Amino acid sequence: MERLYPHDQLFEFTRRVFIRIGCPEDDATLAATVLLSADLRGIDSHGIARLSGYVRLWEAKRVNATPSINILHQTPSTATVDGDGGLGLVVAPKAMQIAINKAVAVGTGWVSVQGSNHFGIAGYHAMMALEQDMIGICMTNASPLVAPTFSVERLLGTNPICVAVPAGTQPAFVADLATTTAANGKLEILQRKNQDAPTGWIQDADGLSSTNPHELKTGGALLPLGGDREHGSHKGYALGAVVDIFSAVLSGANYGPWVPPFPAYVPMPTGMPGKGIGHFFGAMRIDAFRPAAEFKGHMDNWIERFRAAKTAAGFEKVIIPGDPERETEAERRVNGIPLLLAVVEDLKILGGKFELEL
Amino acid sequence: MERLYPHDQLFEFTRRVFIRIGCPEDDATLAATVLLSADLRGIDSHGIARLSGYVRLWEAKRVNATPSINILHQTPSTATVDGDGGLGLVVAPKAMQIAINKAVAVGTGWVSVQGSNHFGIAGYHAMMALEQDMIGICMTNASPLVAPTFSVERLLGTNPICVAVPAGTQPAFVADLATTTAANGKLEILQRKNQDAPTGWIQDADGLSSTNPHELKTGGALLPLGGDREHGSHKGYALGAVVDIFSAVLSGANYGPWVPPFPAYVPMPTGMPGKGIGHFFGAMRIDAFRPAAEFKGHMDNWIERFRAAKTAAGFEKVIIPGDPERETEAERRVNGIPLLLAVVEDLKILGGKFELEL
Repeated sequence: MERLYPHDQLFEFTRRVFIRIGCPEDDATLAATVLLSADLRGIDSHGIARLSGYVRLWEAKRVNATPSINILHQTPSTATVDGDGGLGLVVAPKAMQIAINKAVAVGTGWVSVQGSNHFGIAGYHAMMALEQDMIGICMTNASPLVAPTFSVERLLGTNPICVAVPAGTQPAFVADLATTTAANGKLEILQRKNQDAPTGWIQDADGLSSTNPHELKTGGALLPLGGDREHGSHKGYALGAVVDIFSAVLSGANYGPWVPPFPAYVPMPTGMPGKGIGHFFGAMRIDAFRPAAEFKGHMDNWIERFRAAKTAAGFEKVIIPGDPERETEAERRVNGIPLLLAVVEDLKILGGKFELEL
Repeated sequence: MERLYPHDQLFEFTRRVFIRIGCPEDDATLAATVLLSADLRGIDSHGIARLSGYVRLWEAKRVNATPSINILHQTPSTATVDGDGGLGLVVAPKAMQIAINKAVAVGTGWVSVQGSNHFGIAGYHAMMALEQDMIGICMTNASPLVAPTFSVERLLGTNPICVAVPAGTQPAFVADLATTTAANGKLEILQRKNQDAPTGWIQDADGLSSTNPHELKTGGALLPLGGDREHGSHKGYALGAVVDIFSAVLSGANYGPWVPPFPAYVPMPTGMPGKGIGHFFGAMRIDAFRPAAEFKGHMDNWIERFRAAKTAAGFEKVIIPGDPERETEAERRVNGIPLLLAVVEDLKILGGKFELEL
């Protein structure tokens, strides 16, 4: 049950909503661009479906529409940025731009951010580096939904890592992955369809393997990439932990079980050790290592070799990270973005509140 | 069937072997230190058991005992280093030191290496940063044993990532992980015991799931972390690919299926696009982001919270990355390093060749 909307229509609606909650016009445009990039790339769980959630955070005074985004501390290749409670959709691209500027000056730039909120898809921010012939890196921590290996407590978010690498004639390599077996968005899809989850995605409140997609409502948890110890979940846990440390312990944001929840109705944790949620950004100039043209020639060779790899029976091709999202974007820019009717309904209610038509 | 040896005895034997193949004394000491650190930390597959393999690489003229390790290109925060065919055990710590020196100067340092060989355990190099109050990062590519998701070709190595983070009163956080479900060393243990592997570790030559630990001898492959697509193997594949790109496409080393094999009897690939194998190192000064004491206080808090997490039934505690290796090292420094009798035999033959007693 979906309906198609042209990108520009959804973009304009989103931009106006952000203006209505008090964002300066430039910030509203930026936030709408970042949010809609998720819908274009097919990461529907991180796009306009979350718009009313951002507004509820603002209503709960957990988002500052006019943040003063400041550098708290810096060296030639690093900065710590305070997002001042702003929308992550605005704080993140501004922090990534600082990383890029530092890379222009000294080869690489690394920025850790405190006092932010949910920033949409990691891919948007990492990919900002591509047009500068840089490798872009982006991570963020998130509300605790994931139990470390052997535990029944939810202490980590799905903590994604994105790495974007420019190529020559080939499209860029863009790996954008949650450090869990499956992102929460995939679980939400199963919940809506009332379908079982594969084993290895979730556990119940006692830490036992479960296929019930509603398990998180009764104390269950998402599992780190790997699923269980025998299949390497301690590695997924370690990667999620690294994201948490780089994003929050390094910046002064909240970490582990203290990361603020996205749903505005969930009470804030007590004893929070930092400010807001944390992100981490990196930019590395290709020509800080070797001439960019040389690198891109070899990236093309790398991509072509992997794309041409012999497949197992039943599989059409080996996928280069970033291929599916790029293909979805090309298709949706032409044919429009499909929204679930439940999302359309939610946006219409939001529009009604602000006297805006979807 | 094991026998215990004191660390110092194995260290001295190893150092002398490296001197016998022509390494300068300082390099031999460094190489022995790095190699034995694997045995101390319990990563037996990467320690002295490989010593005769390194010697065979030298005999096959694939290792240069007196390399001229040079910086090919640099910026204030980056360098590309040519290992000149040296032992990775020597090239890697020297390259990591360059990264650390750059971090002292401009906050962070990032070094990509070409023309190297197998470097032992990633943990040793990353942990060099700890005593400088820096975060250490280390990656390497390796001989192709891993099939990307949907493929039957071995195009990636087990491509490990290590991140070492200093703490205060708590021991350091050290995540050191292959980007596969299981490292090759674990498969070798099952081969020796003739035991089945769990599903999700390997596939056969047709790309079908297998539990036969000998599958790699007949065209099978190790699987990326996740195992299969449903369990996130595309994420393990993407992470292994990032390691390959940072280590080799950035530096000018060989990548993908062209990475030189460790066993000297395996012919070199044809059409190699670069030099030797590649590594990537990073060092980030903590106080380039926030005061080190503040950071360490929060790292202690992070570690203590995770260590105290409630466990699922049947599990004693939640493990902090680095705990098992540190505990093994403390024990082995006192009680000695256990070597399989097959390894002892192999070392005695090696000693005989060089008139050295184990």
